[in-house]
Parts: sequence; structure tokens; C-alpha cells
Amino acid sequence: MNNRFYSSSTLAAWKRATGVDWTMYTNHAFVKGLSDGTLPQASFHHYLVQDYIFLIHFTRAWALAVVKSETLAEMKLAASTVDALINYEMQLHVDTCKKIGISEDELFQAEEAVANLAYTRFVMDAGLSGDFIDLMAALAPCIFGYAEIGLTLAKSATPNTPYQNWINTYSCDEYQDLCNSLGAMIEQAILSRVGPNPIASPRWTNLCKRFHMATKLEINFWAMGYRGLS
Amino acid sequence: MNNRFYSSSTLAAWKRATGVDWTMYTNHAFVKGLSDGTLPQASFHHYLVQDYIFLIHFTRAWALAVVKSETLAEMKLAASTVDALINYEMQLHVDTCKKIGISEDELFQAEEAVANLAYTRFVMDAGLSGDFIDLMAALAPCIFGYAEIGLTLAKSATPNTPYQNWINTYSCDEYQDLCNSLGAMIEQAILSRVGPNPIASPRWTNLCKRFHMATKLEINFWAMGYRGLS
Amino acid sequence: MNNRFYSSSTLAAWKRATGVDWTMYTNHAFVKGLSDGTLPQASFHHYLVQDYIFLIHFTRAWALAVVKSETLAEMKLAASTVDALINYEMQLHVDTCKKIGISEDELFQAEEAVANLAYTRFVMDAGLSGDFIDLMAALAPCIFGYAEIGLTLAKSATPNTPYQNWINTYSCDEYQDLCNSLGAMIEQAILSRVGPNPIASPRWTNLCKRFHMATKLEINFWAMGYRGLS
Amino acid sequence: MNNRFYSSSTLAAWKRATGVDWTMYTNHAFVKGLSDGTLPQASFHHYLVQDYIFLIHFTRAWALAVVKSETLAEMKLAASTVDALINYEMQLHVDTCKKIGISEDELFQAEEAVANLAYTRFVMDAGLSGDFIDLMAALAPCIFGYAEIGLTLAKSATPNTPYQNWINTYSCDEYQDLCNSLGAMIEQAILSRVGPNPIASPRWTNLCKRFHMATKLEINFWAMGYRGLS
Repeated sequence: MNNRFYSSSTLAAWKRATGVDWTMYTNHAFVKGLSDGTLPQASFHHYLVQDYIFLIHFTRAWALAVVKSETLAEMKLAASTVDALINYEMQLHVDTCKKIGISEDELFQAEEAVANLAYTRFVMDAGLSGDFIDLMAALAPCIFGYAEIGLTLAKSATPNTPYQNWINTYSCDEYQDLCNSLGAMIEQAILSRVGPNPIASPRWTNLCKRFHMATKLEINFWAMGYRGLS
Repeated sequence: MNNRFYSSSTLAAWKRATGVDWTMYTNHAFVKGLSDGTLPQASFHHYLVQDYIFLIHFTRAWALAVVKSETLAEMKLAASTVDALINYEMQLHVDTCKKIGISEDELFQAEEAVANLAYTRFVMDAGLSGDFIDLMAALAPCIFGYAEIGLTLAKSATPNTPYQNWINTYSCDEYQDLCNSLGAMIEQAILSRVGPNPIASPRWTNLCKRFHMATKLEINFWAMGYRGLS
Repeated sequence: MNNRFYSSSTLAAWKRATGVDWTMYTNHAFVKGLSDGTLPQASFHHYLVQDYIFLIHFTRAWALAVVKSETLAEMKLAASTVDALINYEMQLHVDTCKKIGISEDELFQAEEAVANLAYTRFVMDAGLSGDFIDLMAALAPCIFGYAEIGLTLAKSATPNTPYQNWINTYSCDEYQDLCNSLGAMIEQAILSRVGPNPIASPRWTNLCKRFHMATKLEINFWAMGYRGLS
Repeated sequence: MNNRFYSSSTLAAWKRATGVDWTMYTNHAFVKGLSDGTLPQASFHHYLVQDYIFLIHFTRAWALAVVKSETLAEMKLAASTVDALINYEMQLHVDTCKKIGISEDELFQAEEAVANLAYTRFVMDAGLSGDFIDLMAALAPCIFGYAEIGLTLAKSATPNTPYQNWINTYSCDEYQDLCNSLGAMIEQAILSRVGPNPIASPRWTNLCKRFHMATKLEINFWAMGYRGLS
């Protein structure tokens, strides 16, 4: 297992720009419930169904990243991520849901929670309104937050938490390696568009706004899952 | 004053497909509060600020309709609507907010409520993922619901309700005429893409879904305004 | 080897709607030059470089199809096609170009011919302005035309034509199977949006226009390759 | 009449980056033919019809700019430009074409030349793939080139050239004023995204590429008009 989740100076600066919100996201009550096993199953199932829909739109957002790529490296990695999302990450949801009698087609058609709409469509619109790195700033909290939560929980979760499978999905080397690759690509993408000191760029405020809003929408997503309501 | 708000067989069928939600939207507690004057001022101001941001994105959505037009008539009316939104409808918000010390630039930069994000970005994404009429189905509940509410309240509101200005904005002939023009254009747009019996088309279910979701997001928007919270 | 390239009633009707242009495309002088080996190497190399750029944008168009998918099946197949284009079909170009001293990065940065811009951006805009099947109508001539040309040439090409490798790429089972899958998916996509008799739909004319324009832009692309100029 | 067309340090740098192509564009044989009256009427009519279609897509591109605006000022000016294009600039084409028996609906449906497709869809795709200033870089050669050509010809054209009406359209104060407003907005848009020294930004090369390609596509458009062919 990797011992450290991805970090970089840009990511660190983005996290700082969220104030307490990054911690609110990565240490949410939902996360603690996954870690110590106290999260109600109903909350987890509600989350899983909504997260399946989230992943559909996250896949669409990465497909939009393919559309917006300006280098071959960006394009290839974005295309691989589209594939990885559909063929690997979604599978946890499909398998778990199948056990409780929900088919993949039902998942695809499930009624979408407002928290889900707000988050996923905000990301899509970041891609439509901005360029490749505007989209990356909106995608980053999910990618790197889940990597951080996954690895933290892999080290600290209560043995026999019923949510070990979820923890494994986001702590495993495959996911951490993907995050490392995406992180390196995002750094390069920012470097080649904004230069070596992005924090000094006039775009920095807007990039931080997109990252921060996506972080808040992650918190709102956990809250929706926790309540078990839309 | 026009005596009747726009209707058509398509619009009537779309409303029916929402079950009780159309009534929940057009008779929401927020609407009653506008009518009898009991809506707290704080709720109204919160709504106004959020609705200003909503109109920014609604303008963007009509601009996307220009991008997606397939006839000259569609294009011209969508372009006029972009203009009408920025130069007419937004002005109520700007003027009212100026009286309470909020400038237009502050309005433009205000923190966006989740209810607002969910609704507006859902509409933008309907335009990105579908064609012109997929976008129209997502825009229709706002256009025609406000026309219906405006005209109903113009007839039934308590005299001296402090919200008469709002009521006038959506009951006035200019707004009702715009709705009539948009309604006729949408009918024609559906006719030229789906044919004379849209309800029999395999697309009908998806068009209804978009209309219904936008209606639910209107209800959620009123609720956000009513609470005075995001 | 498959003996028959993909066909369907929709595809047949689309071809008929192009008048003589489908034949002009699939029997172009460039195609005959591939078949009998008389195509000048300079023309072929010019074509290969431009076709590499074409495939970049074709990949972007399929990524846009992921964005615009409405079913899980559409989404999965569009995502796989993005992958297949980058990791399989492009490889022929990369390998062949490497032999003559052109690296993949040079290919990615090559000056784009007008014929290429016109075709690829027309397809992208079909996706931006229309829905999933508007995009499919613009993508179809390339997919199915190359399958037809590949299989025809596999049967009739002069032995020892120096272009056997190109012919193999588009006649091989993998490519023909992909076309069969895409054809079935497109049929289903049309069925679920337009119904069982698409030719009777008011959309049919516009779908044919997109297919026909893409066919003309294929002819124009061959002509550009043949001339060895932009 | 304004005596000087819009210029700025950014625009000057963009022009320089095109090498001789800016001069090839603004001094094209087509332009000389407008100036001295030697342009064949058939060429002008062919151009007018194609330019009408061009303006349709140019309007769509400005609508996409509304979608991609990040400030109120950008949004309002982009929206006004959408209107100005449909209601003012297109009118020259409609009126002139009416005199020779071509209705506006026929214009809207006319067969689009490859030179037109290449240019307009390149611009649309600059908007889809990049951000607001990527789109502006692709729009700039048309806006400012026509202002330059219009004003130059207003001073130097042969008296009684039959193309005086065209010259007036692009030399008149209204058009020059619009260009000044757009120029100031673009400067501000670049300043607020890239900073005060855009030429030193890593994005500069890509912005120049978009401007240069659009300039080449203007040359190609004149050539298409001159030939009187697609």
C-alpha cells in the first residue's frame, strides 16, 4: 500500500483557500461513520445509489476533459480516467447494490438528489464555461479528497467496520496511483497555462473559487448521504 | 393587462406529468406570502439576491439556446430573450437591491445557494447533453410558471402587499407577451423535431422528466428563499 | 475475416439521401490508389499526418458522445470507442509515421489542413448544437464508410499493394466488430428517440443533412490527401 | 467618421505573430476588388450569401461568449453583440440579397462552403475547448480586420465603386464604436485572466495560434468568395 496520498504545492494552496472546509469535508460525520462502523446502513445505501449517479456525471466530466485537452498527455490520461471510472470505480457500487437487490439499470435511472445535481452540474458547467484547468479545479476535491480519506481510514478504521470494502476502493494502490498520475498531469496543465507561480496569477482567485465550491458541495453530499434524504 | 397566461396542449401535458408538483410550485407558501404580504422581508431579499444570480445563469441558458437554434425564428427570439433578461427582468432586482444598499457588482458576486446551483446548472446541462427542445423543456417551468403566478397574483393579491412591484413584473403585458411568443416558438420547435403528436414520441418521457425536474427545482428554490438560507 | 460490413435500414436510407456522394466517397481516386498501389507515397504520408489530427478530434467527438449519452449502454460504448481510437486506431498512424521519422508529438502539433478543420469541427458542432443522434449522424460516414472501404479493398486490392497495412486496419475483425456494435447502438439510439420509423420523423431531413455533409467532407478529405496539400 | 480603427498592444502583438498573413488578409485581392470596383458581381453575391451563413455562426459564437463570460461587463457586451449581429450587420446582407431575389430564409438554408465550415466551426470549437479569451482570440481577426479594411477603404476606395454600401457598413461609426468597445473588453478580459504582460504568459503561444489560424481562415474565405465557388 502507498503510504502517502498525493500532494503538491498547488493542491496545498487550494486546500488552504477553503479555510476550514477541507477539514469539514475529509472529517465529516459520514466519514467517521465509515471509519468506526457507526454509519447506518440506510445512509450508506442512499449514499451508494447517489454516488453511482454522481460517478455517471463524473465520467461525463472527464469525457468533457478529453474534449478540452490541449496535449496528447492530457487527452490520454483523461480518456483512461473515463474508462477507469466506468469499469473499475463504479463496479463497487454495482456489486454492493446488486447484493441488496438493486440492478445497474435501476441505479442509472434512480431519482437524483438535489445535492447531487448541484455538485455534478456545477462541475460540468465549470468545463463548459472555462478551460481545461477550470474543469480540473472543480474535479480536484473529489479525486484528492477521496484519496486522502481512503488512505487515512485504511490506517485508522475500526477493524471489522462493515465499510472496509469502501475503504479498500479508495486506499488501494490502483486508486492512489491514478491520483498521483492525475495530480502530476494537473500540475503540468497549470504550469503550461498559468506558469510556475500560479498563486500570483490573476486567475488564481477563480480557480480557488471553483475548488472551494466543489469542496462545499462534497460536504453537502456527505450531509445528504448522512440524512438518507435528497 | 392580458387576462390569460399562455397555455398549449404540450404545456398542459407537461404540467400533468408533474403530478401535484406544478401546483406545489405555483401555490408555494412563498407565493402566498407575496400575495398576502406576509412574506418576511428578509426572505424576499434573500430570494432577490439569489434570483439575480439565477437570472445570470438563465441568460446563459438562453444564450446556449442561440447556439443550439436550428431556424432563424428560434435564433432571433432566443437572442431577444437574452437581451430582455439582462436589460429588463434583471432591472427589478438591481433597482430593489440598490434601495437596500446592494450594488449590481455585489449581486453578480454573491455566494450562490445550493438550490440555485442545482437548478441553473441542471438547465445548462440539459442544453449541453440534449438538443434545443431538451433545453426548452428545462426552461419552460420558469417561463410559464412565473407568467401564471404573476397573472394570478395580479388578480388576487391583497391590496397594498409590499410585493406589488414583483407581481407587476411578471403580470405586465410585456412579460406575458414574451411568454406567448416563447410558447408559440416552443410549440413550433417541438412540431418541427418531434411531429404533431409529441406525447406519442419515444422522446416524450425524457422531455417530461426534464420539465418535471425543473419544476421540483423551482419548488426547492422557493423553499430556499422562504428559509432565507442557502 | 468478416464477410460483410455493417448495414441497417437507417444507414441504407442515409446513404441513399447522399445521392451519388456515398459512391464518390467510397470509390474515390484515393481509395483506388490504395487498392492498386498507385497512390503516391507523398499523398499517403500527407493523408496519414492529417488523419492523425483527424483522429484526435474524432476522439474528442466520441468523448462528447459520452457527455451526451442518455443510457448506460450508450455511455459505455462511447467510452470504449474513445479508448479504441487512442490506443488502437491511432497506432497505425504513429507506427507508420515513426518509420519515416515523424514522432507522435510532431503529429499532434502538425499544421491542420482546412479540409480537416472543416470536417472535424463540423462534427464537434453537430454535438454541441444537437443531441446524441445528431452527433451520431455526423460520425456515421467515417465509421461505416471506412468499414465498407476496408472490407472491399481486402477482397479486391492488388496483391503487394504497399497499402496493405492500411487495408488490414479497417478490414480486420476488430474494426468490423466495433462497427457492428456501434451500428446496433446507433439504431437503438434512434429507435429510443425518434421511434421505429425514423424516415417519417420531421427530424429525418436534418439527420440526413448532417450525414450528407459529413460524407461530402470525407470526399473533400480524400481530395486533400490526394493533392498532398492542405 | 472615426479616423482610426481600434488598436492595442495585444492586438498589435497578435497581428505580428501572423507574419505576413495579416497583410495577406487585409490586402487580399477580394478587398482590392471591393475598393476599385473590379470585383465581379458574381463573386460578391457568392460572398454575401456565404457571409450571411458566416454571421449566423458568428452570432452563435458570441452567444457562446455569453455562456462563457465571467463578469457582468463581458456578459452584457457579448449579449449586445449577439443582438447587433442579428439586427444590424446581417441586414446589409438581407437587403442586398433581397434585391437580387434571395429571401432571408433561403439565405439561412444556403449550402455552406467548406471555407465557411472550417472557419466558423473552428471558432465554435475554440469556445468549447478553451475559455472566454481562447474564444476571443479566434473571434478577433474578423472583428478588427473588418474594421481596418472598412476604414482603409472608406479613405481610399475609387469613387462610385459599386461596393460603397459594404464599405459603409464596416467604416461607419457604429461599427467602429462597437469594435472599440469589444477591443477594450478583450484587453480587460486578458488582463483579468493572464495579467498585465500577456506575451510573457505560457498561454500566449496558444492564443496566438488561435488568432493566426482565424486569420488564415479569413484569407481562405476571401479566396472562396473570389473564386465564386465553395
